[in-house]
Amino acid sequence: MSNFGAHRLRLVNPYAPGFREAKSAVGASDLLASAEEFKTVAEAVADCALVVGTTAIRHRVLPQPPRRLDEFSGATFREQLRQTRVALLFGSEKIGLTNKDFSHCHWLLNIPTQQANISMNLGQSVAVCLYELARTTPAEPNAHKPVAAEIQRATAGEVEQITAHLLEALDKSFYVKPGTEVVCEKKVRRLLLRLNLETMDAKVFLGMMRAIVWKLNHPEKTGRPKA
Amino acid sequence: MSNFGAHRLRLVNPYAPGFREAKSAVGASDLLASAEEFKTVAEAVADCALVVGTTAIRHRVLPQPPRRLDEFSGATFREQLRQTRVALLFGSEKIGLTNKDFSHCHWLLNIPTQQANISMNLGQSVAVCLYELARTTPAEPNAHKPVAAEIQRATAGEVEQITAHLLEALDKSFYVKPGTEVVCEKKVRRLLLRLNLETMDAKVFLGMMRAIVWKLNHPEKTGRPKA
Repeated sequence: MSNFGAHRLRLVNPYAPGFREAKSAVGASDLLASAEEFKTVAEAVADCALVVGTTAIRHRVLPQPPRRLDEFSGATFREQLRQTRVALLFGSEKIGLTNKDFSHCHWLLNIPTQQANISMNLGQSVAVCLYELARTTPAEPNAHKPVAAEIQRATAGEVEQITAHLLEALDKSFYVKPGTEVVCEKKVRRLLLRLNLETMDAKVFLGMMRAIVWKLNHPEKTGRPKA
Repeated sequence: MSNFGAHRLRLVNPYAPGFREAKSAVGASDLLASAEEFKTVAEAVADCALVVGTTAIRHRVLPQPPRRLDEFSGATFREQLRQTRVALLFGSEKIGLTNKDFSHCHWLLNIPTQQANISMNLGQSVAVCLYELARTTPAEPNAHKPVAAEIQRATAGEVEQITAHLLEALDKSFYVKPGTEVVCEKKVRRLLLRLNLETMDAKVFLGMMRAIVWKLNHPEKTGRPKA
C-alpha cells in the first residue's frame, strides 16, 4: 500500500492475535499503526462514496459483471478518486468476498489472469490493483520520468579505426586466411557498423584493440607500455 | 507466476532447506516442482536472448537508466518475448540485485512507486511485473503473421563466451590494470550486452576472439592451428 500511495487501511473483523502482533511489531509501518478496525463491511465503508469490490470470479453469476482491472481506471473513476473517498474491498485469502460483501459494492473489479489459475495471493492482488490505479492516476506527472538520455553514436571514422586495429589483430593471429584479406576486411567493417556503437563504447573498444595489437606485436613484453 | 502465465522458475543459490520444503510441500504447484536451480546468474540466463533486471533504484548511479514498468512493454519488447527466451531477474528481498547481477542485464526495469517507499515485497513486485507484461502482451499474438526478417539475437551464454575470451585477451595484453579485474569484467560484459549481437555476428566475433587468444598464448607460432 505504501509503495503506491494508499495510506488508509481498514480491517473488518481481523484475526485479533495476528493483527495485534503485526501492529506492535518492531518496525511496523505508520500505515499499520494507524489501521482501523470495524465490525462490519457496512461500517468500514460508511464514509466512502464509491465502493469497489475485487473478485477472481468472471463467469459465475455475480450481482453485476466485473470490470477488468486494465480497462477499469477510466476518467469516471479517476474523477471519483479525486473528489471522494473510494474504498477498494478485498476478501479473505481463502474465500474472497461473499455475496453479502458484494452487496456493498458499486462496482466489481477483476484482475485478468490465466484461466488455469484465477486465485491470487491477497497481498499480490492488492499490489497489482494499487499499481494499476497509481499508474493511471498521475499523482505527480512526470515526476519520475527519466530524462531521455541523449545517446551519441560513433562516427564512421571512429568505427574505421576500430576496424583497422581489429583487422591487424586478426591478421597477426592468422584468422585471415591467405587470399581472403579483401573479403575479411569487408566482413569486419560491416560487422562493426552493424553494432551501431555509441561514442563512449567505441572509445573503449578502440582502447582494447590497441592494447591487444600492441601485445601481439611485442610478445616478449611483460607489462603495459607507459602512456 | 501461474496467475499470469509465466511457467519457468529458475533460482540462483536458493536457501536450500526452504526451497526443498517448498518443493515437497503438499499442494506445491507444478511450477515449483519443475523449478531449476543454478549456481550463478550467468548459468541461469545462459539460454536467454534478453535479460531484464528489476531494481527499486531510480536515481543512484546505475550502469544504465532503468525503464519504467508502465512505459516498458513496447513493440520491441513484445517482439522479443515472442521470438526468444526472456529472463526477468529479481534480486533477494533484502538487497536486490548486485552490480555484478546488473552486468548480466540488457535492460533494467523499475516499478514506479512513491518516493517515500521504493522497496517492494519480492512476491508483490513479481506479481506487478507479470501483470503488466501479461496486460500488454496479447496471449495469442498473430501467430501466423509473417515476421519481417526474423533477426535472431545471441543468447546470454553465447555473449558470455565472447566476454570470457575478450577478457583473456585483454588480460594477456595488460589492458586490465592490476586490482581492476572485477570492474573490468563487469565493464566488458555490459559493453558486449549493449551491442545486442545477432546470433551470426556473435559466432563470428567468438571465432575472432578465439584466434586472437590462441595467438597471444602461442606467440612463437607462425601459422594457424589445424582445425
